[in-house]
Amino acid sequence: MAQLTILGAGSWGSALAMVLAENGHEVTLWSHNEYHAQMMQETRQNTRYLEQLTFPENVTITADLATAVRDAALINFVVPTKAIRQVAQQIKPYLKDKRTDEWPIIMHSSKGLEQKTYLRISEVLTEELNLTEEHPVVVLSGPSHAEEVANHDVTAITAASQSLEAAERVQQYFMTDDFRVYTNRDVIGVETGGALKNIIALGAGILAGTGYGDNAKAALVTRGLAEISRLGIAVGADPLTFMGLSGVGDLIVTATSSHSRNWRAGYQIGQGAPIDTVEEQMGMVVEGMATTIAGYEVAQKLHVEMPITTAIYEVITEQTTPQAAIQQLMRRDKKGEVHFTDLQSVLTPLEQDKGE
Amino acid sequence: MAQLTILGAGSWGSALAMVLAENGHEVTLWSHNEYHAQMMQETRQNTRYLEQLTFPENVTITADLATAVRDAALINFVVPTKAIRQVAQQIKPYLKDKRTDEWPIIMHSSKGLEQKTYLRISEVLTEELNLTEEHPVVVLSGPSHAEEVANHDVTAITAASQSLEAAERVQQYFMTDDFRVYTNRDVIGVETGGALKNIIALGAGILAGTGYGDNAKAALVTRGLAEISRLGIAVGADPLTFMGLSGVGDLIVTATSSHSRNWRAGYQIGQGAPIDTVEEQMGMVVEGMATTIAGYEVAQKLHVEMPITTAIYEVITEQTTPQAAIQQLMRRDKKGEVHFTDLQSVLTPLEQDKGE
Repeated sequence: MAQLTILGAGSWGSALAMVLAENGHEVTLWSHNEYHAQMMQETRQNTRYLEQLTFPENVTITADLATAVRDAALINFVVPTKAIRQVAQQIKPYLKDKRTDEWPIIMHSSKGLEQKTYLRISEVLTEELNLTEEHPVVVLSGPSHAEEVANHDVTAITAASQSLEAAERVQQYFMTDDFRVYTNRDVIGVETGGALKNIIALGAGILAGTGYGDNAKAALVTRGLAEISRLGIAVGADPLTFMGLSGVGDLIVTATSSHSRNWRAGYQIGQGAPIDTVEEQMGMVVEGMATTIAGYEVAQKLHVEMPITTAIYEVITEQTTPQAAIQQLMRRDKKGEVHFTDLQSVLTPLEQDKGE
Repeated sequence: MAQLTILGAGSWGSALAMVLAENGHEVTLWSHNEYHAQMMQETRQNTRYLEQLTFPENVTITADLATAVRDAALINFVVPTKAIRQVAQQIKPYLKDKRTDEWPIIMHSSKGLEQKTYLRISEVLTEELNLTEEHPVVVLSGPSHAEEVANHDVTAITAASQSLEAAERVQQYFMTDDFRVYTNRDVIGVETGGALKNIIALGAGILAGTGYGDNAKAALVTRGLAEISRLGIAVGADPLTFMGLSGVGDLIVTATSSHSRNWRAGYQIGQGAPIDTVEEQMGMVVEGMATTIAGYEVAQKLHVEMPITTAIYEVITEQTTPQAAIQQLMRRDKKGEVHFTDLQSVLTPLEQDKGE
């Protein structure tokens, strides 16, 4: 059996390590924190992030990067977006020659956009590890709470890569009776869908935190899907991806569930918590905060209209209050405005493609 | 101010009567139950279906159909799908001449398909009232719990008609600061989306009732949206409608909320309640049960693949158990299957249209 490595021992990295181990693979799970790694290796538990899980015997937990990646057939980055570039730089010296069969599959299961550069995670990895078309990154992404994967609840998720062969290898490693992996070629769509949906999740949390209900949530999520699709399409995504697991599916599970950390962060903001204390209080990274800033800046640059993202940006940069932002957003529409022109524009590029 | 009539004093009819009254119109709310009508007229409350609402003074409640429709400028059917045809027959003698300006706008806010005939509600109304293109039906539909409308929570909803002018008149009557009405031309899409989403809501309830979580729900809703879109397109709907309020939006509010009666009926079925007792126990019509049978039969006739609808059909006709149906549905996919071919097929008609 192959040796497969997960970088990052948060809740999601731990759940994915368990899935691979249950398929009989030798799994190495790397944590940047030596103490945490030792505790997990000894107790076979990750009490900090994913209580309900017991690591199978064939998971080895280490804080040593060289051990983690040297003989790996697959390296899956499951670290926060802001740590991706640094960890890639750190593993580079230990990787095998790209021209041999020993070069591992490079993949990630994180959701976000790099701040300032606005790069997708696969772009950061490609840059830092000098990847070429022969070794394209695979992204494993979709609607999934780590807790439910740990409990063997049914999950459907997407493995996307420009190389169908690489996506299929990842599918083969991860697929179980409960963990259903579907392949897809649209890396841009899967990455932007997975990242940008956190903005809408944050917004849905803010809406709930200020006391709005399901009707308002449905309006927000519908318009939110339209605007993240617009931005995705502007950067080259396939519109269809936003109707699938990485669009509608991911939005449903994140924007309507109190399990989602982005939703919970938004809820606290809606309830009036100071912005700068929210991440600290949660003890977890809230990707949606950084992604809102990245998404807002990309939209400005590409002249894509994103009213919901703009409203949330103004809230988290403390230019307005949640209440004022929502009032502005939900009630400003003119009487004669037809909501569906919004959606029409989502699919326009698809139609234009056909016309040429 | 115009006299506007709502036929049907359930929770939704009552909430819509309140919205119209708050816009200053004279509203008549008709209930088929004389005792219920009298109680509501005297107490100004609808304790049976919508406790939190107090009817404004300009709402008159009656059980007399002639009074309700004779001078109405607008008649909105908000009765259960199975009662639509009968109520239409009953009001016909009291309507004014179609060739005069006194002919009212005929609209409905119900969600369902007629059993056996498979007709949409606007088709039943058109048939029974001999409507022509000059007097097209308007449908007001979208993601909305009546309770939240009564509480003045923000709601976004669609007024659809083949005549934009008629849709705009309805928009004008109903639009308030909280109740946002968007016009649309795709009557078929809005009606089929609104009706068929109840099947998926029922399925999401069954899934939750048998103990599945958010990940499984996201997979079900994503695939569910794909399959109701397929059927909608097969009967002439615009694919874009399913990305809007009557598709994604309505699905989110119904399939992820325990307020939804279809979700709650499904939940009981998932928990093992006998099928024939579910509607009785709830004391309300569960449109999703009848719609599942109608949807299944239409799909068979038109050769549209609807695995989720088929599974729910088999559960409610007691050919299989909820557990067996879900196992079959969620885990049967072959390893190599690409989920997105499903979605591709959703938009194929749109692309074909462009090619011609």
